[in-house]
Amino acid sequence: MMEVSLIEAATWLLQQQDIGILCHQSPDGDTLGSGSALCRALRSLGKRAQVLCSDPIGKRFAFLFEGLEEQQFEPKAIVAVDVADEQLLGSLQPVYGGKIQLCIDHHPSNTHYAERWFVNPQASAACEVMYSLIPLLGVKIDIAIASDLYTGIATDTGCFQYINVTPRTFRIAAELLELGVPAPKINHAMFATKSRERLQLEREALNTVEYFRNGEIAVITLTRKMVKESGAADEDTDGIASIPRCIEGVHVGVTIKEKADDLVKVSLRAPQPYNASEICAKFGGGGHPGAAGCAIHCGVKEAKKQLVAAISQYLEEI
Amino acid sequence: MMEVSLIEAATWLLQQQDIGILCHQSPDGDTLGSGSALCRALRSLGKRAQVLCSDPIGKRFAFLFEGLEEQQFEPKAIVAVDVADEQLLGSLQPVYGGKIQLCIDHHPSNTHYAERWFVNPQASAACEVMYSLIPLLGVKIDIAIASDLYTGIATDTGCFQYINVTPRTFRIAAELLELGVPAPKINHAMFATKSRERLQLEREALNTVEYFRNGEIAVITLTRKMVKESGAADEDTDGIASIPRCIEGVHVGVTIKEKADDLVKVSLRAPQPYNASEICAKFGGGGHPGAAGCAIHCGVKEAKKQLVAAISQYLEEI
Repeated sequence: MMEVSLIEAATWLLQQQDIGILCHQSPDGDTLGSGSALCRALRSLGKRAQVLCSDPIGKRFAFLFEGLEEQQFEPKAIVAVDVADEQLLGSLQPVYGGKIQLCIDHHPSNTHYAERWFVNPQASAACEVMYSLIPLLGVKIDIAIASDLYTGIATDTGCFQYINVTPRTFRIAAELLELGVPAPKINHAMFATKSRERLQLEREALNTVEYFRNGEIAVITLTRKMVKESGAADEDTDGIASIPRCIEGVHVGVTIKEKADDLVKVSLRAPQPYNASEICAKFGGGGHPGAAGCAIHCGVKEAKKQLVAAISQYLEEI
Repeated sequence: MMEVSLIEAATWLLQQQDIGILCHQSPDGDTLGSGSALCRALRSLGKRAQVLCSDPIGKRFAFLFEGLEEQQFEPKAIVAVDVADEQLLGSLQPVYGGKIQLCIDHHPSNTHYAERWFVNPQASAACEVMYSLIPLLGVKIDIAIASDLYTGIATDTGCFQYINVTPRTFRIAAELLELGVPAPKINHAMFATKSRERLQLEREALNTVEYFRNGEIAVITLTRKMVKESGAADEDTDGIASIPRCIEGVHVGVTIKEKADDLVKVSLRAPQPYNASEICAKFGGGGHPGAAGCAIHCGVKEAKKQLVAAISQYLEEI
């Protein structure tokens, strides 16, 4: 296990053949965008490369893999992108756990599980790291790679809205735009498109908003019944998590998703200076200061009680 | 009436004293941001300057005027910023109509009503023009001016989401960030904060969604009763307009706001390649391709009928 420079990472990659690129489970635009960009770069060097993920790639992100036909081979080199911990590999964890040779990431919480790792916590997205790595492979960023990278940066920053945006993020975006990225089209698909089912679920969700601590905590609850009746897909539920955080006066926004009788998944969102990741850590979860998550083995009511208590204590102490 | 270069505009401004800066009615972040930035720049040169607007400045934009105490004087020079037409001055139109000596704008639809005008339709926001103009006055952009400009650019681009964003927009944003603009704080206030009343109105609005032409047209209707019962302010209703456009498969999103028994205000939103401005022009309105508006003198039902007919015809012909 050793930290490497970006040049060392590139040099190592250039020596490999048949590369498997692992994305994290419940894949987002950044893990898939860095995966597809790296895959395109390696293939352009005549290598076999394949993006691997435990979950199917939703319709929303299918465009990232346009022109990248599937290649069948036994991976000899294993790279993880935007994966903070092996646990996040989902069903790929038993297969590749302990065998990851290179990790490229931007999560400060990265657990340095890989043989060699390059983690830049100043980067808004793993795709921002990839923007620097790909030219070191001797590959010119073309419009397809640029679109992959733009997608990762845009989605991980909430379209340049979050605190992780730096001057460098904006300058990279300027250069990607000049390479011909169809940014308005990507933005529309990423940020401005909701299915009718998602809209229906949103209406249901809005009916469940509860306030605690004089409106400093807002909680939305999504039961399995609500999700089922709306016809919404699992990815539709993701965007719901940003709703409670957006209510005026709210310091911590909570979305509780019922997964089973005794299991809930929790999404926490917090504006500065509050730290959602710190709160989720109390429940064995993690993430970023602005957005974090955890799972709790109990029913919805009990989870709400525990979360409100923990967040109240956190707000008391801050 | 003559077009001037930015240097000519700056030279003229440097010769003026006691400058009134006019913003458009229902002021947004761009007209107010360019107004306050120019006002700060002129005052730093020892001139008296005052931003003038027909409507009160809402709580949301109050921060743009921090440190800009009101100055009482009879304006000798009149400048309009981000004002496409004199009609948009609201109650200031009878006072200043025909007397505007300089107009700084970015609307392609600008009607060239001012004695001298500089209009850059390639600029995402009037604030992008102001970013070039202020240094020509010999004024260094400080953090207050930078925050004003950032606010105008961010709000007019939907936080860097719309088609009007260019590489230059991103590069300016990078430089404003380096000047110390508290972008996450501004973004949170502009894009991620909804009052409880707004949330309530949103829920009501979602109940009114109607689809036409196989879901290519989506219409939301806000009656006076709904707005009143939600307790939402007029500015709360603005954001609602983006909801119908965001539904998957929708080409034109329509929001009809009932203003009186025989008056509605209409907001149209359209993703590329559809042009909301062209459709609104049929009703005597206008705006940008992505977002436009008009007023129709009739009731909600009749307005819906006319709009759906006009949009259907437009979609037929495109």
